[in-house]
Amino acid sequence: MKQITKHVIRNDLKRLFTYRICLIGFKRKGFDRIYSHDLGEEAGVTADQVRKDFSVYKMKGNKKGGYIITDLLNAIDEIFKYQNNQYVILVGMGNIGQALVQYKRFILRKMIIVASFDINPSKQSKRFGIPVLPMSMMREIIDKFHVNVAILAVPEISAQDATNKLIDSGIIGILNFAPVILKVPDEVIVSNINLCDELESVIYYTQKVM
Amino acid sequence: MKQITKHVIRNDLKRLFTYRICLIGFKRKGFDRIYSHDLGEEAGVTADQVRKDFSVYKMKGNKKGGYIITDLLNAIDEIFKYQNNQYVILVGMGNIGQALVQYKRFILRKMIIVASFDINPSKQSKRFGIPVLPMSMMREIIDKFHVNVAILAVPEISAQDATNKLIDSGIIGILNFAPVILKVPDEVIVSNINLCDELESVIYYTQKVM
Repeated sequence: MKQITKHVIRNDLKRLFTYRICLIGFKRKGFDRIYSHDLGEEAGVTADQVRKDFSVYKMKGNKKGGYIITDLLNAIDEIFKYQNNQYVILVGMGNIGQALVQYKRFILRKMIIVASFDINPSKQSKRFGIPVLPMSMMREIIDKFHVNVAILAVPEISAQDATNKLIDSGIIGILNFAPVILKVPDEVIVSNINLCDELESVIYYTQKVM
Repeated sequence: MKQITKHVIRNDLKRLFTYRICLIGFKRKGFDRIYSHDLGEEAGVTADQVRKDFSVYKMKGNKKGGYIITDLLNAIDEIFKYQNNQYVILVGMGNIGQALVQYKRFILRKMIIVASFDINPSKQSKRFGIPVLPMSMMREIIDKFHVNVAILAVPEISAQDATNKLIDSGIIGILNFAPVILKVPDEVIVSNINLCDELESVIYYTQKVM
């Protein structure tokens, strides 16, 4: 089970995401160019780290003028292949699932939830902007849209069953909101978002501070 | 700005959370005791790591009988002070905010969202099980319930303003869902959950695999 190492987003990817947020901010403020020093300060890392991260992906600046912000943003987009829509499915239309299918930022980033699945037929008749389908239609949709990735937002007790079904149907990446360590084959990637753990960690740290 | 190092949950805490999930699983299956080897295998770490993590917090097992599961769970609860309810507020009653105030697992872990805040009066009149209040009442509620921690689920554009207001009112820990790097004083802890980044990372890895 390689999940523990896999489920953490690699730090260099996290930094790229952070740089992107900062760069968009600088661009909005009217800047065209940026020095590694200023970007580093905004992102909370050293200028060296910024230059190192960018050089890995062949993004180059120069000492006089720094980096061109638009070039950096385009290069980061290229890494994550933003040109094409990425189709995703969601399983479990509880509160979290319903919020996620209505989360507009996914679409802005070209990640499209094409369908959701729920065992409860009453959920299937509600309107959420995307179809809510019975679990039996999972494979058909995955095949039709060439989906590799699923968001899992089912209760803990059904998480492993749903996972098995997803993997049988061809899914190789899961963003898991259920507080369970999923058992998956080595080639399947699981990223866990455990909302309780996240909130509890913040509480824990604030108690340390006080 | 120390946010980048701070916003990542420390790995040893993450492992404790993982152990807890696994231990609860073993207990449900009827086990009373567990060896570091078996827990490590379930959690995806070495037996050495398990023993090391537990010894830091003075949890001891023995070679013959292993650890008593209930003792471990109690000790982990003690670390996170589960005996008392932890009061939290939430700002921003969009889709994500609404899902979070209805997320029952927080309550099971004694984390209680006592009130939510939204600038939109129409949200304030809806029923979500907890009161939705105008921003002007923030300080009163924070004082009344001795709240240290807030969940921030407002749009990107209002995130920094809301943060400033929270900090002015006494908040020192923020679980932030807005895709923004918040500027906060050094003593304030921010933990970021960026849903787009998380989903995109999974997509990125699956493309690497194929």
